[in-house]
Amino acid sequence: MSVMKSIKGGVTASKGFRAAAVFAGIKASNKGRDDMALVASEVPAVGAGVFTTNRVKAAPVRVSRAHLRAPHACAVLLNSGNANACTGPCGISAAKKLAVATADVLDCGLRRVLVCSTGRIGVPLPVEKMVSKLPELAARLSAKNGGAAARAIMTSDTFVKEYAVEVKASGGTFRLGGMAKGAGMIDPNMATMLCVVTTDAKISKGTLQNALHTAVERTFNRITVDGDMSTNDTVLALANGASGGVSIKAGSADHQLFADALHEVCLKLAHMIVEDGEGVSKFVTVQVRGASSLQAARKVAEAVANSTLVKCAWAGNDPNWGRILDAAGYCGVRIREELVDIYYDGVAAVRGGTAAPTPKQQLVAAVSGKRFTVTIDLHQGRAFYTVYTTDLTEKYVELNLSE
Amino acid sequence: MSVMKSIKGGVTASKGFRAAAVFAGIKASNKGRDDMALVASEVPAVGAGVFTTNRVKAAPVRVSRAHLRAPHACAVLLNSGNANACTGPCGISAAKKLAVATADVLDCGLRRVLVCSTGRIGVPLPVEKMVSKLPELAARLSAKNGGAAARAIMTSDTFVKEYAVEVKASGGTFRLGGMAKGAGMIDPNMATMLCVVTTDAKISKGTLQNALHTAVERTFNRITVDGDMSTNDTVLALANGASGGVSIKAGSADHQLFADALHEVCLKLAHMIVEDGEGVSKFVTVQVRGASSLQAARKVAEAVANSTLVKCAWAGNDPNWGRILDAAGYCGVRIREELVDIYYDGVAAVRGGTAAPTPKQQLVAAVSGKRFTVTIDLHQGRAFYTVYTTDLTEKYVELNLSE
Repeated sequence: MSVMKSIKGGVTASKGFRAAAVFAGIKASNKGRDDMALVASEVPAVGAGVFTTNRVKAAPVRVSRAHLRAPHACAVLLNSGNANACTGPCGISAAKKLAVATADVLDCGLRRVLVCSTGRIGVPLPVEKMVSKLPELAARLSAKNGGAAARAIMTSDTFVKEYAVEVKASGGTFRLGGMAKGAGMIDPNMATMLCVVTTDAKISKGTLQNALHTAVERTFNRITVDGDMSTNDTVLALANGASGGVSIKAGSADHQLFADALHEVCLKLAHMIVEDGEGVSKFVTVQVRGASSLQAARKVAEAVANSTLVKCAWAGNDPNWGRILDAAGYCGVRIREELVDIYYDGVAAVRGGTAAPTPKQQLVAAVSGKRFTVTIDLHQGRAFYTVYTTDLTEKYVELNLSE
Repeated sequence: MSVMKSIKGGVTASKGFRAAAVFAGIKASNKGRDDMALVASEVPAVGAGVFTTNRVKAAPVRVSRAHLRAPHACAVLLNSGNANACTGPCGISAAKKLAVATADVLDCGLRRVLVCSTGRIGVPLPVEKMVSKLPELAARLSAKNGGAAARAIMTSDTFVKEYAVEVKASGGTFRLGGMAKGAGMIDPNMATMLCVVTTDAKISKGTLQNALHTAVERTFNRITVDGDMSTNDTVLALANGASGGVSIKAGSADHQLFADALHEVCLKLAHMIVEDGEGVSKFVTVQVRGASSLQAARKVAEAVANSTLVKCAWAGNDPNWGRILDAAGYCGVRIREELVDIYYDGVAAVRGGTAAPTPKQQLVAAVSGKRFTVTIDLHQGRAFYTVYTTDLTEKYVELNLSE
């Protein structure tokens, strides 16, 4: 019997969470599509967050990080169309004003409100316009509007990203669901990416923070579309205990179930972000094994997954293993060329650093698929690492000629 | 009075050097274009070399590096169409066979011959076919064929790259000239790049090696097209003393003149490689200043110069400074966002980490040019670094869909 099953919905799949979306006209070119979203817990929740490691941090990142030091969190206000990044002290004031106004309409403490922004960098946030929409946004809060909120945070995303699971734990059943947006600037250590996860399990703030950190490290930090890490990357988690009986104690069997559920939801959302990368036509899993250390495995995997030439070859259905070996060679890891094997979907392309006797057509067939796995065995040790990435298409360049 | 002037030609601009080119049909799709070249000194010369730091090294890199330990060098045999990389022990044998056969036809010692290959990775070199062409190649050696040799090493290059200077030193006049090929896989620490420099100055092997190392570090190692460092990157220098009087002693004024001339020739060839990058439409100089260390300045400059998103914006004439600041923020240097200024051709785009009050049209005008300079002032110290790079176009992706 499986204890975890996928259920419908995202941030409102967990009990006691409501969401809403509204159109505020944050970006001039946005014609009527909702661009503000709110996620709120009916009872005080505990919050956790993992943020961009970029030295350039958007104002909402700085404000949310500070607010998360408070014991409880109630709501997350999000917007698309403007990142409120590189906006100086005015940007910080704007993010704080939004938090204050949201706390007002929800009648909760200021520091219980977290804020997220995504969109263009360096443009002042139209904060008055946004504040004027908050009463309407709050009035729309409903357990049915999780999907509408997920849609409102999209930028160049082409589909809504939400996922949720239900878990039968020993203490009872709990739910865990989330929404995310991605598209450009997707790289390990996160991206132009926002994600909000909710759960109705009861868990301490510290245990939630540790679980979120681990889940992000193994999911969102292993995806890359273009190698550019953004200023706004944020993953937030709220746990409100509304499921009743279930209390997750660190080290218990239920704690493991909770970690698995969080991993599953983050992984599914991370994969959706890669699949929806700008102009992407293929989903590629890069596995490195036989490395002398985790760090070495990671460096090789990321170099291959970010190589412009490797990604162009994939777009052209070219199983160009020379470019893969080249990238593995320049990433700073002391690989031994003559030991390296490379496989496309298990079919050997390289054995011992040189061409395997596989008919080229077989390799072309593998790389022509919409999803395939490249495995690089360094034969130097036992460490392994996996990165999820994409090809690089003319469409990607076209989409990014200007914003 | 200027002591250095540009003169016509490349590797045969220096006295006592001859060159030749021939068609060997190394790559099946190459229809009749010369693909083998030879550069030879009439008298024994001293040789120096700087090679790729990629852990995956092509066979000719390994063989030439070994041969350079000999006191003298006489000739360089080069080919396009096949990189002889990732070809295992057979590749090493093939490179050695070519050196042996070249030494035979030139009647010199085996270790006085250096070899270079560029082209497709992982395909066995058609060594018998090449050996059979060597007598014809040697017979064509002439001081007039420097240009033909420069043309024969081109792959996806669209123009011949050669440059030479003449220098009036205190001991007399000497010449220094070179040829190069570039196009794809261009990155700091060199590229799919070959370069041969010759001089008729008299200089010791050690002094030449040091001068070459310094010149490469400040020129070829500061260019990037796609962030991919190749397995074959090689810069070789031969000095034959045929100018007569001029002897370059380490530490002398003439030594400085020699270093300047070598820098000038390498810089001109490096710039040509960037200008001729695959699908490139713009030549961009990225200057970082005010850094706390050279290493910090370099990291920021390289992150900006290699950012997919930054380069796409340039291709679209978009002065998107947010992407530049983003790249500076994720490269691992502890920049302080609120101190950073960014300029396009001296026009302020960012002051103190946020938008400068410059009309956008002025920035668009700068980034719309074929050549412009981006200056990033970190205001944290006095170190600076410059990288030469390009935009990223749909044409680049198209050219690299397959090889």
